[in-house]
Amino acid sequence: MASVPTGDAGLARLLDPASIAIVGASDNPDKIGGRPIHYMRRHGYAGTLYPINPQRAEVQGERAWPSLAALPVAPDLAIVAVAGEQAVRAVDDCAALGVAAAIVISAGFSETGEAGRALQDAMTARARAAGMRIVGPNSQGLANFGNGAIASFSTMFLEVAPGDGPVAVISQSGGMCAMVYGLLRQRGIGVRHVHATGNEADVSVAELACATLRDPQVGCVLLYLESLREAEPLADAAALARARGVPLIVVKSGRSEAGARAAASHTGALANEDRAVDAFFEHHGILRARDPQELVRYAELALRAPLPQGPRVVVVSNSGASCVLASDAAAERGLEIAPLADATQQALADRLPGYATTVNPVDITAALLSNNGLFGQVLPVIGSDPAADMFLLDIPVAGRGYDVASFATDAANFARAASKPVAVVAWQDNVAATFRAHGLPVYADEIQAMDALSALLRLRRLRERDGGAPASHGVVAAGPAPEAAGGFLSEAASLALLAGNGLAVIEHAVCHTADEAVAAWRRIGAPVALKACSAQLPHKSEHGLVALGLDDDASLRAAFSHQAQTLGKLGVRDGAWLVARMHRGLHECALGARVDPVLGPVVMIGSGGKYVEALRDVAVLMPPFDAAQVVEKLRGLRIGALLQGVRGDPPADVEALARQAVALGEYARAAGPRLASIDINPVMVGAEGQGAVAVDALVELHPANAREAA
Amino acid sequence: MASVPTGDAGLARLLDPASIAIVGASDNPDKIGGRPIHYMRRHGYAGTLYPINPQRAEVQGERAWPSLAALPVAPDLAIVAVAGEQAVRAVDDCAALGVAAAIVISAGFSETGEAGRALQDAMTARARAAGMRIVGPNSQGLANFGNGAIASFSTMFLEVAPGDGPVAVISQSGGMCAMVYGLLRQRGIGVRHVHATGNEADVSVAELACATLRDPQVGCVLLYLESLREAEPLADAAALARARGVPLIVVKSGRSEAGARAAASHTGALANEDRAVDAFFEHHGILRARDPQELVRYAELALRAPLPQGPRVVVVSNSGASCVLASDAAAERGLEIAPLADATQQALADRLPGYATTVNPVDITAALLSNNGLFGQVLPVIGSDPAADMFLLDIPVAGRGYDVASFATDAANFARAASKPVAVVAWQDNVAATFRAHGLPVYADEIQAMDALSALLRLRRLRERDGGAPASHGVVAAGPAPEAAGGFLSEAASLALLAGNGLAVIEHAVCHTADEAVAAWRRIGAPVALKACSAQLPHKSEHGLVALGLDDDASLRAAFSHQAQTLGKLGVRDGAWLVARMHRGLHECALGARVDPVLGPVVMIGSGGKYVEALRDVAVLMPPFDAAQVVEKLRGLRIGALLQGVRGDPPADVEALARQAVALGEYARAAGPRLASIDINPVMVGAEGQGAVAVDALVELHPANAREAA
Repeated sequence: MASVPTGDAGLARLLDPASIAIVGASDNPDKIGGRPIHYMRRHGYAGTLYPINPQRAEVQGERAWPSLAALPVAPDLAIVAVAGEQAVRAVDDCAALGVAAAIVISAGFSETGEAGRALQDAMTARARAAGMRIVGPNSQGLANFGNGAIASFSTMFLEVAPGDGPVAVISQSGGMCAMVYGLLRQRGIGVRHVHATGNEADVSVAELACATLRDPQVGCVLLYLESLREAEPLADAAALARARGVPLIVVKSGRSEAGARAAASHTGALANEDRAVDAFFEHHGILRARDPQELVRYAELALRAPLPQGPRVVVVSNSGASCVLASDAAAERGLEIAPLADATQQALADRLPGYATTVNPVDITAALLSNNGLFGQVLPVIGSDPAADMFLLDIPVAGRGYDVASFATDAANFARAASKPVAVVAWQDNVAATFRAHGLPVYADEIQAMDALSALLRLRRLRERDGGAPASHGVVAAGPAPEAAGGFLSEAASLALLAGNGLAVIEHAVCHTADEAVAAWRRIGAPVALKACSAQLPHKSEHGLVALGLDDDASLRAAFSHQAQTLGKLGVRDGAWLVARMHRGLHECALGARVDPVLGPVVMIGSGGKYVEALRDVAVLMPPFDAAQVVEKLRGLRIGALLQGVRGDPPADVEALARQAVALGEYARAAGPRLASIDINPVMVGAEGQGAVAVDALVELHPANAREAA
Repeated sequence: MASVPTGDAGLARLLDPASIAIVGASDNPDKIGGRPIHYMRRHGYAGTLYPINPQRAEVQGERAWPSLAALPVAPDLAIVAVAGEQAVRAVDDCAALGVAAAIVISAGFSETGEAGRALQDAMTARARAAGMRIVGPNSQGLANFGNGAIASFSTMFLEVAPGDGPVAVISQSGGMCAMVYGLLRQRGIGVRHVHATGNEADVSVAELACATLRDPQVGCVLLYLESLREAEPLADAAALARARGVPLIVVKSGRSEAGARAAASHTGALANEDRAVDAFFEHHGILRARDPQELVRYAELALRAPLPQGPRVVVVSNSGASCVLASDAAAERGLEIAPLADATQQALADRLPGYATTVNPVDITAALLSNNGLFGQVLPVIGSDPAADMFLLDIPVAGRGYDVASFATDAANFARAASKPVAVVAWQDNVAATFRAHGLPVYADEIQAMDALSALLRLRRLRERDGGAPASHGVVAAGPAPEAAGGFLSEAASLALLAGNGLAVIEHAVCHTADEAVAAWRRIGAPVALKACSAQLPHKSEHGLVALGLDDDASLRAAFSHQAQTLGKLGVRDGAWLVARMHRGLHECALGARVDPVLGPVVMIGSGGKYVEALRDVAVLMPPFDAAQVVEKLRGLRIGALLQGVRGDPPADVEALARQAVALGEYARAAGPRLASIDINPVMVGAEGQGAVAVDALVELHPANAREAA
């Protein structure tokens, strides 16, 4: 886990400026240079505004100033709303004046091509040299409804009325930022921070996430990202969020190849390997949402309810069909429709008519119509049953004759008393609005509700981890020596590297003559494989350089001689031989490691053997992690079912496999960017207590100077 | 495919009655006996109403009648809105009078338990004997807004104003029926039929689906089901829908075990095996939706657009982020973000500013704000590109300064000209409403839109099939002889049964002595397996009764003698031996067949071998099907990737495997309910041209009289 970073004064002043200059200030509140002033006056910004406009003495009722140079003090913040070269000049003037931060709304920079990028880079370098931070350029701006510092020209604040509250929304895309704000406000959720970083010449989404997380009023941070350019600031934000117990929920779009291509067109985003993104988010306790709508649905539950303790959900509905739909939606998301205690069922039977259902899901039926009090009578009964980790109150239809306000009051009281997540499903807008007005999270259908409940359970489980301390395996991993060459290592060197870093590898000997090979076989005392190995031939089996199951002098010598001829034909000079014990385990697994250029090392674990790529039965983890996390991940794989022991097989030594994965993760961390890839296939896993052994391995390193050269 | 059934006069009069009696008619339009009268007067029902009320001369302005017996004619339809025994008496009176059909709204029948079920069964039997159909009991009623025959007491028609149109909604659950109606009307979709069948003592959802499909104005039929009690009526409805080119879209809930349990509590539904349900729907060209909300989203697209011809979607948006989200959503649903032709891109470049994106997805950017005409200029350009099978117009944000009405007009003109599906994404309610008002299907997010587009592509592909005529394999399948005993067949008998029905089975001989076994091995001329086989020992390998790879006289005799001893110890008297050629193919697959008690035979195909259950890599088809359908199904499986040939393997003989599956399907159809199960594992599949061979098989039959006894 990243350590919790300390504050950054520049960013703090960006979000809470004592004074703001607006370069290009307009008297017209519908102009880009006028709208922020309009917003700030309307939302009670208490600091000083300095509209810069050489043509006017007053702008929207505020005293105007002819230039930045004319200002009596250096403002904390400047909004640059002039175009082209004027914008660059304004930024330079701000830097010279000692402004803490400038928000460059103006477009025409890196988003327009190389010339624009050069302009942007130079401007930013000058600003940073002067100690000034830049938001944007091409940014919709920042808005803080906690103090009225609305340095933003988004029209969305006119479309949907602002209301201060616990949420921070931060996005590269201004449009997406505004839209998430709109969706939240439509759900009656208070939003304090709405920040768009635009071209991100300097200040990033993750940095602003950290800054908003230092606002004690912020209780939920929502990000929209199309690329991860740096891992550390986001890891810092995640650590802060975790330390404060604040959910950090992120959309990272560009998940698919098509999406990544579109993201490259949109923000010039570099594609991140999506499984690595998932592993990174999981590692740091960040909840991932598929799209902005899901982001908002998760946020609504996270704001209104504690995180669930477990997967058991109790459903109460006035519709039998909704009970069925809710049960399907729960089961398909790994949630359990928990059985109620006998006493609970009896208490329900005492209150409900005979044709109602007293098992979970509880169907109070249309009897609710003739007795609106039933809802309030049933809730405390199910609330007292320890079977529930969370509740779904599903009132799809409640028209004429239903006292929805009383249901909502009952539900709100119940949720308060329960201290467990309570979600509501309401199909009718007016019913939804009534429940929302009572502070309850409301969903349009059962699938959305169960999605949100299961997502928050996932978040709890991610956060509950002890930080993924790897199981000790008595070896401190060390990366490749600086002088190590780049390229593929031979199998022998690969196995040696792994063995030296705490992985169990197949019993083997490196030989250079047939006599040595025979001696090694005798020492091993069992059938062996003979494999010619060379760094020049990473894929030796393609050349017929593997002979299996040799168990006598003659066969071994014959195979040796045959392989020596082949090596000769292939012109391999560094050839050596590996004599390795034939190992039979119960299952062929595979382990791998890669280093993502942005996110760092990841470890893959899954089904092994010849068809490893085609089977795609693999989980990805970001080190450090512990063996328990590996075991949990394996459960989600098809090989996981086999490893438990089926069709008379004994359970496999999953713990040993997990330890191998942990050790590999430690090595990948130690190796850092020098590591290109490690493929271990197969890892033979034996029965419980019989261990897991790396049988074949291939390590590839980047040249020592590859990073500098790139 | 089921043949298209002919009309049913009783049901036709149910939906288009010339006269309606209301037993228990009330002057109060808010009472159950008053609401249908209120509705029918309000919605212009042109037939005669006969309110039955002994206390009043007039009911809601209509002449009232003291009893059914007092009526001048037998009405086509009677609504029974009185309770308990009165209801039973009224039904009997209706039957005696010669009423064509009665809708029994009254509850207190099978939903209350055994006594209620007996009452219901007896009442129904008397009605059917008299030639009268019954809807319900415990039904919310039927509503036909085409002729104003609103024999329903649903309050939803007060909550959301009715509007006649092309949709029929039919459900067992009255609540779900009303809710789907409400969702459709909120989307501005006209709904003609809203029918709830309640306890389904007689008339079923599927029968009403057939009846509404005979209404030429009906263009989309939506069903909500919790169980399938009979396959044929639904197959009939599907055939009618297909013949008329009308989408039939169905929610079948109770997909999961938890959901099926809830459905049993709700409507006493028997659980259907969900994979068999899927196979049945696919077979009959029925589109399945997960829940009622998805049902309505699919319906909106189906009503507003033709079915897509292929998977290529072109996206146009004013938001770069939406382009990314749409691309992800498309890719994850198997749709393609198709490349645009160079000429198209050039034409877009001529119209759009330099920073816009002219590849697909087309990002026209916020330039749309300064030039609202861009949208209308871009659409014909992309419309003229043959790359598109369908379009997504994604306008998430369009506040101040956007002429949404002109966008909607442009989009509607474009959709008309394109004759391809056009879906719209709008996040803002007012934007959505404007596009809807122009007849365009609108979705709240990209995932919902791509879901709907891919669902309709799936429907097209299901419907495009030639009816699944099986590939001829020169054998007419025949079911088991009536005198065949029930229980497991021996392996020899199982293989013989399959071979007799057109499946390729392993070369083998049945022997009773060691000499015979040796002779068989010599005849085969290759290594063989020796397997003791008996109908008493379906799982022979558990008893060590399988010896593999025998290729000499002595080994064969030794194995024979060992197995004979084991059989003796096990007390098996009908033991025989199978001598079978050792067969090595490229891949181990598995085939199976089951007969679902309601849905009929289904065939399973997938990965085979020891771990067949744990791997769960299996597809299910409903026969008859052809080899092409099997090949398509295999593509969705993990074994499918391997069968194509990876890691240097040649492509496997998928055609031969598919022919085996077709033959198995034919046999399962011929066998009918006598068949319990067939498991063929492995089917060894060789390289292309090398065939697929059933190596081991186990057939289980039900006793000849099992069905009658059950």
